[in-house]
Amino acid sequence: MRFTLLKGSGSGPRLGRLETAHGAVETPVFMPVGTQGTVKGLMPDLLETTGARAILCNAYHLALRPGVEVVEALGGLHDFMRWPGAIVTDSGGFQIFSLARHRKVTDEGVRFKSPLDGATIDLSPETALANQVRLGADVRMPLDQPVPYPASRTETAEATDRTTSWARRTREAVRREGLEGVFGIVQGGVHADLREKSVSEITDLDFAGYAVGGLSVGEGPERMDAILRHTVRLLPADRPRYLMGVGYARDILSAVSAGVDMFDCTLPTRNGRNGTAFVRGGTLRLKNAVHASDPTPIDPGCSCPVCAGGFSRGYLRHLFLAGESLALILVSLHNVWFYQDLMAGIRGAIREGRFEAFWASCRE
Amino acid sequence: MRFTLLKGSGSGPRLGRLETAHGAVETPVFMPVGTQGTVKGLMPDLLETTGARAILCNAYHLALRPGVEVVEALGGLHDFMRWPGAIVTDSGGFQIFSLARHRKVTDEGVRFKSPLDGATIDLSPETALANQVRLGADVRMPLDQPVPYPASRTETAEATDRTTSWARRTREAVRREGLEGVFGIVQGGVHADLREKSVSEITDLDFAGYAVGGLSVGEGPERMDAILRHTVRLLPADRPRYLMGVGYARDILSAVSAGVDMFDCTLPTRNGRNGTAFVRGGTLRLKNAVHASDPTPIDPGCSCPVCAGGFSRGYLRHLFLAGESLALILVSLHNVWFYQDLMAGIRGAIREGRFEAFWASCRE
Repeated sequence: MRFTLLKGSGSGPRLGRLETAHGAVETPVFMPVGTQGTVKGLMPDLLETTGARAILCNAYHLALRPGVEVVEALGGLHDFMRWPGAIVTDSGGFQIFSLARHRKVTDEGVRFKSPLDGATIDLSPETALANQVRLGADVRMPLDQPVPYPASRTETAEATDRTTSWARRTREAVRREGLEGVFGIVQGGVHADLREKSVSEITDLDFAGYAVGGLSVGEGPERMDAILRHTVRLLPADRPRYLMGVGYARDILSAVSAGVDMFDCTLPTRNGRNGTAFVRGGTLRLKNAVHASDPTPIDPGCSCPVCAGGFSRGYLRHLFLAGESLALILVSLHNVWFYQDLMAGIRGAIREGRFEAFWASCRE
Repeated sequence: MRFTLLKGSGSGPRLGRLETAHGAVETPVFMPVGTQGTVKGLMPDLLETTGARAILCNAYHLALRPGVEVVEALGGLHDFMRWPGAIVTDSGGFQIFSLARHRKVTDEGVRFKSPLDGATIDLSPETALANQVRLGADVRMPLDQPVPYPASRTETAEATDRTTSWARRTREAVRREGLEGVFGIVQGGVHADLREKSVSEITDLDFAGYAVGGLSVGEGPERMDAILRHTVRLLPADRPRYLMGVGYARDILSAVSAGVDMFDCTLPTRNGRNGTAFVRGGTLRLKNAVHASDPTPIDPGCSCPVCAGGFSRGYLRHLFLAGESLALILVSLHNVWFYQDLMAGIRGAIREGRFEAFWASCRE
């Protein structure tokens, strides 16, 4: 894995290229989420037509089902899901946060009770990394411990210290195994000084890239923005920066302006499934009765196969009301396209030195 | 609508061409079913890649939801669902059979109680036809009354007489409106003499094509085959013959050998959704544990985008177990492809005068 910063510096909008064994990825990049080894509803070649070149899968979920050994036997994650582009995997750290009632965290690692069959799953920094290596991910994330919002300073400090301790063990394993493409994750909640401490400790370990974790968990856009800006400018300029699990177009634009290079979010496919389509400046609730006889596509200015293909809002509404799977396919496709289109717009604007104007035009 | 018999005669395998306002359809043809205005899980352009050139939609279901007026407002069924090929619509006659507990049949027509909201829907031969014309179907079916199996001779005779009486009213409406592409439907259950009477009465009305209805309803393959052969050879050679709702490859091959030109069935997509894939000589239950680590595609000899694209049985099993929508997309696509491939094989074999050998090879 190799990252080249093509334009920009340690803060402010940046243009870059992440070269992986599965192709080059232009940054800033948005990675659609394929938690269980599929970006929900989208055949890989259709996903590729959106311009997506990297996706995020979840090593915790894949280890649970079908199991790392099954994916390995089927040729690794790329072969398994027939995705030719880059794959980033999350370690399971986020599940410490999202499955809080089903896990116990110790300094050694985390013990989950599987929601599928009640089985016990032990994850340590070492096994979390080994799982991702066996899956064949291009970029691997260390086990970390995000904290919810709100959380006490003590709780946040403890989780941030544990994240550092786990990062050290991860770094040791990387050295031992001679691995590439392993990122570090910065935590620290909404406390500026804890973020500073985390950045200092994690960047000291010299990872291939740096993620900012534990944001967009309920702290609100203003607080997120402030903490993010404070954190990002402390990161080394020559490594990719990844804001995990974010988000809406407005959050991405703001984070790009702060110097973030990589994003992932389930929003385009999750909203696609429930009938919410992204359009410039907002969303469209396709189940609403107002669309019943509307021949307009989701967005007349969009060139995705759904809008350019002439599928009307009225037809999409019908598909949702009739419980037809084509509904989620078409709207997920449009939404993923919308995000890739946004990122292409962002990259073009940075390249041409007009990011601020582009950002402003998105707020109109 | 124009039908040209290219090879064959009144009985035995035939090759033909059905020209419609939405393209030419080579026969024998298999029409995937898009009951509610979508062939479940398949984007229209993907459906086209399977070789499908005609599909069957259901005017009863579409009249219920979203309503004929909505489809009309959205440009008719072709525009509505963005399907450029031919569309055949069923009238609602089959729902007299399948929704037996929710309807009342009189000589005037049929009254349904909507399973969606309890509303009353009245269908007469005239309104059933008018709905299909408004939907913009290329081939329209008259309202008929299939009988279940077993049914008494009296019940069968009564329903067959009513089918004739409704066919006369349909024919009258066709003449009045100057319509094209309206078929007649032959009923008569499993009674050879009632089938003869029905053929005689229906063909006297001079429809654009003839369907054989009321088969594959539980009478078993041998009885179906016997009645079908007896019926088909009585139909005029110069009109297309359509065996409604059939079926498995073995049924289609046998019916082709009897002189049938058109087929439809929900099997490829229904089985696709529940994890059963069609392969030469049988089916594959993809949820079975035996496939867990199997890197083989569904059918190594198949050139569909799923098999040729390298999606493994192990991956497909994972998708089904994980409840992922890509599962039904991929297996429906393979199954529809399997049927289109079968029909292409049948047409090629008839063209080259080796249908019997082809049929025998399919039984191996």
